[in-house]
Amino acid sequence: MCSVRCTRRILLKQKMPKTKFYYFNLKALGESCRLLLAYAGEEFEDIRVSSEEWAELKPKTPFGQLPILEIDGKQYAQSNAICRYLGHKYGLAGSNIEEDLIIDQNVDFFSDIRAKAGVVHYEPDEAVKAKKHEEFSKNLYPIVLKKLNEIIEQNNGHLALGKLTWADFVFAGVYDYLKMMLQISDLDEKYPSFKKLKESVITLPKVKEFCANVPKSTCDF
Amino acid sequence: MCSVRCTRRILLKQKMPKTKFYYFNLKALGESCRLLLAYAGEEFEDIRVSSEEWAELKPKTPFGQLPILEIDGKQYAQSNAICRYLGHKYGLAGSNIEEDLIIDQNVDFFSDIRAKAGVVHYEPDEAVKAKKHEEFSKNLYPIVLKKLNEIIEQNNGHLALGKLTWADFVFAGVYDYLKMMLQISDLDEKYPSFKKLKESVITLPKVKEFCANVPKSTCDF
Repeated sequence: MCSVRCTRRILLKQKMPKTKFYYFNLKALGESCRLLLAYAGEEFEDIRVSSEEWAELKPKTPFGQLPILEIDGKQYAQSNAICRYLGHKYGLAGSNIEEDLIIDQNVDFFSDIRAKAGVVHYEPDEAVKAKKHEEFSKNLYPIVLKKLNEIIEQNNGHLALGKLTWADFVFAGVYDYLKMMLQISDLDEKYPSFKKLKESVITLPKVKEFCANVPKSTCDF
Repeated sequence: MCSVRCTRRILLKQKMPKTKFYYFNLKALGESCRLLLAYAGEEFEDIRVSSEEWAELKPKTPFGQLPILEIDGKQYAQSNAICRYLGHKYGLAGSNIEEDLIIDQNVDFFSDIRAKAGVVHYEPDEAVKAKKHEEFSKNLYPIVLKKLNEIIEQNNGHLALGKLTWADFVFAGVYDYLKMMLQISDLDEKYPSFKKLKESVITLPKVKEFCANVPKSTCDF
């Protein structure tokens, strides 16, 4: 009996797609995908690429960028695209194309904020960086963060559709990274809906278990 | 006979969803959606918002941004999200979620290039703008444009899946805008695949008809 069952298990294992996820040992743009894979209980290799390894891996990736999701040797790139795919795979998408459009537009709105903050954060010229931060802090961040807060409040604590979707994983994975780039120390207090949304995702049982067992990131975001 | 047929036509017309598309009188981030609507022969109001009208409309939009697709009074935002929706609606998406992921990753890669060029183009400080343009022209554009060209060549002249998808409409609608922002005068000659892809979309019969009849844009991109 045991040997039959064991053989069957081996056969099943052989048929299961081999999933690998490549990113640096950071949360940043990789964590959302990891949280989705963890939520689904997907067996995956959580490969955290060092700077030395990256030099060798870079030319072998689709766009010379990470993260990469690899399924049975086939590589896919772009964090939001991967999250959308995993969302559809794991039943975290909309129930029709109109609902998917609402998820997508809200994710893109959120990602636009992250991209704007990234323009400041990755600016190498300190004087330009300071000026840009001042400008965005005055004319951009207050408007878009207020709108983001409204969206979450109107959606029952979620980013879209008033329920858990893959959009929430995008938010939860990126939030600490965004907070660091925004340089708004009281963001959690100013918009409690943000921290609450992040917490609601990372305390989902399988996600919580995953987060408790990952290696310490190179930095906290 | 005629009156019966006319009544039926009126009834059908009443049941048809009322579609409006709001953008400025520019191609830029709105043209891709317009081209998709035209391709499908969708009856839509092509609303070109003036600066004066925008001041009044802005607070009524989901994110204070254009373009907006409005269907039966419900508004949707974000150009790529709208294009993805229209792509699924009109049979221009992948045949499974893995194919959709390939479309999405390639669209995001293309949009990242546009966003980077936008950072330069919309920089108000002329000295910073010149420096950034020089930096990107040396270290970024050659790499990503070469990759973009490879993608199109490997995909039979398309942006993804080796066939016509909504990704091609994203490319065709944005190309002139991107070219203007990149400030590379010989882009068409350097990468003939780019112009060819754009032409292949804007010469599709219904798209061609639409393009021949639109009002002249405020500018050419």
